[in-house]
Amino acid sequence: MSEEPSNVAATRGPVRIVGAGLLGASIGLGLSALGVPVTLADASPTARALARDVGAGAIEHAEDAAPTLIVVAVPPDVTAEIVAAELRAHPGAVVTDVASVKSVILAEVAHLAARDSLDLGRYVGSHPMAGRERSGAGAASADLFVGRPWVITLREGVDPRALLAVRNLATDLGGVPLQMSPAEHDDAVALVSHLPQLMASLTAGRLVEAPETALGLAGQGLRDVTRVAASDPRLWSAILTGNAAAVSTHLRGVRDDLDGLLGALDRAAVDGPLALGAIAGMAGVISAGNDGVARIPGKHGGRRKRYTEVTVLVPDEPGELGRLFTEIGEIGVNIEDFQMEHATRQRVGMAIVSVIPASAQTLETSLEERGWRVVAQ
Amino acid sequence: MSEEPSNVAATRGPVRIVGAGLLGASIGLGLSALGVPVTLADASPTARALARDVGAGAIEHAEDAAPTLIVVAVPPDVTAEIVAAELRAHPGAVVTDVASVKSVILAEVAHLAARDSLDLGRYVGSHPMAGRERSGAGAASADLFVGRPWVITLREGVDPRALLAVRNLATDLGGVPLQMSPAEHDDAVALVSHLPQLMASLTAGRLVEAPETALGLAGQGLRDVTRVAASDPRLWSAILTGNAAAVSTHLRGVRDDLDGLLGALDRAAVDGPLALGAIAGMAGVISAGNDGVARIPGKHGGRRKRYTEVTVLVPDEPGELGRLFTEIGEIGVNIEDFQMEHATRQRVGMAIVSVIPASAQTLETSLEERGWRVVAQ
Repeated sequence: MSEEPSNVAATRGPVRIVGAGLLGASIGLGLSALGVPVTLADASPTARALARDVGAGAIEHAEDAAPTLIVVAVPPDVTAEIVAAELRAHPGAVVTDVASVKSVILAEVAHLAARDSLDLGRYVGSHPMAGRERSGAGAASADLFVGRPWVITLREGVDPRALLAVRNLATDLGGVPLQMSPAEHDDAVALVSHLPQLMASLTAGRLVEAPETALGLAGQGLRDVTRVAASDPRLWSAILTGNAAAVSTHLRGVRDDLDGLLGALDRAAVDGPLALGAIAGMAGVISAGNDGVARIPGKHGGRRKRYTEVTVLVPDEPGELGRLFTEIGEIGVNIEDFQMEHATRQRVGMAIVSVIPASAQTLETSLEERGWRVVAQ
Repeated sequence: MSEEPSNVAATRGPVRIVGAGLLGASIGLGLSALGVPVTLADASPTARALARDVGAGAIEHAEDAAPTLIVVAVPPDVTAEIVAAELRAHPGAVVTDVASVKSVILAEVAHLAARDSLDLGRYVGSHPMAGRERSGAGAASADLFVGRPWVITLREGVDPRALLAVRNLATDLGGVPLQMSPAEHDDAVALVSHLPQLMASLTAGRLVEAPETALGLAGQGLRDVTRVAASDPRLWSAILTGNAAAVSTHLRGVRDDLDGLLGALDRAAVDGPLALGAIAGMAGVISAGNDGVARIPGKHGGRRKRYTEVTVLVPDEPGELGRLFTEIGEIGVNIEDFQMEHATRQRVGMAIVSVIPASAQTLETSLEERGWRVVAQ
């Protein structure tokens, strides 16, 4: 998280936000909290009023000062058209968008700018890597972008002041600006966001006609793999359409691996477990997965190395989890990370508490003295 | 969790466990804690000694009483052979196994039993739906099976006393016994366990050659989808080989959906976003995923309905998460569930605390009064 500049309001001009959904309203909340004047526009008067009511900004009036920065936060399939309209209507302003695809939008904006003699140099596409499962201004938060990457797309011919304005927007809201080309961005999100979304959806799609008895055996693995499958079909269709070529490339890589795997499974099914190449085909897919998951950066990827997990059985009764944390606080051990595991029809949960290795023994002993059941390591 | 019978030791005979890994040692620990005499066997003297040292049972001696129940807990590719050997060596005992595939093992055991005139009625295959990311007796726990489904396979010709003995084993260890046919089990685990494992591995496999910049944009979605991709290739090759036909069927369903999706993406890439059928093809996959994920039972599936989530920003500094939980305990609100979200290079985490809806407002207000930053809902 960057330090909040002390004089943001004095150095940033009025900001106009077009599209008062989750992202637009969250940007408005964050800027308003810093004292920056924000006006809100949305095709839906209801959405606009809701965003105003949660404190994301004011409804525009004729006498307002002209905006110096315009943020277009509408679905990707209508972004280019609105960016062009804003460039046209506000000749002095920098315009950015926050859509999750970039090349298609830039191409369309460039086409419209050439056709209508608009100054394309004032447009810089961007993409904050932040979101929630819920949408709309009601779910908005000034903290949505804190600590998250905020991609700013680079290309020739951009006005450096436009680039700076969008960079300031990202850092003012606590984001971490990262510069890359539109194509580089689209390929990256195809891989780390769009592909996992589709793999989760394809996996969950297989459950639609599954027998209840099969679903009763579901564990944490299935829950993790399919969690993001609960996403909005309309929004995702627009995202995937806008990044179709890059998504298709990665998905084709999956299909090639999948075909190899099916070949190995079929050899094993027909010729038995020792069929030539069957084991190697399966082990190869699992091993490649080991290598790939090890490359994901961040706390979770490194947790097993940095922290020791202490697993505690927690009765599924009100207050028990709270009591556990209160007592860990009393014991004086810092919780570095935490996860909860549940299974079907159980009356206990497993609380997995990650602590620094030096604290693990103290925590285990102290919790057992207090009557908790600690799962032996 | 079933109530622990008060006289288990008196009513259960000696149990012999073959295979002193995670599952075998966990079963030994659980039975030993109930006072049941347990002996341990393993092809590796080191593994056997480790299991004994963690308290999972005793090393066998010639003067030991004959076992009444034998639990075979070895990798799936050697299970049948060892089950047959145990049926042969211990003519009075019930034999079960805990391998994660069932039809192939039953067919092989039946073949060996017919060849060697063994009493197949004394064998009942089973599968406790429990595991950990770590393996070996060092990771064993008497509580591993508490509240988890424990599949017991049904077929004609089984001795009812054998069925009862395996059922008692499951309930003595806190498991929830579920009876189904071997084919029904194999199809169920192919869908809820083996398929998600492969989808996670295939997704993670795409990351092996990804640019660092792309991995830097990874968020919680990618982490969730790929978490189980960190599994053991040798064990998983044996599992997949032993369930090749059922896994292949579900994976072929995925490939059909994937081909439809690729067709839609390619139409959008070539003919633009409004290509005939492109949007419908993509939205259909996402919608089916919505329907499938909604069918997964358990706490996590129902959480959004039962609980309200309160999201709190937690500085990434030692003690902060512990302090949060201590203060929630002081406020007197029960934590029903909890998850932590992290992103790249951030200096704060988002602690998502699930509470009953009636407590959410109190918790938010009280936390804010204490200086915590609560993300507005």
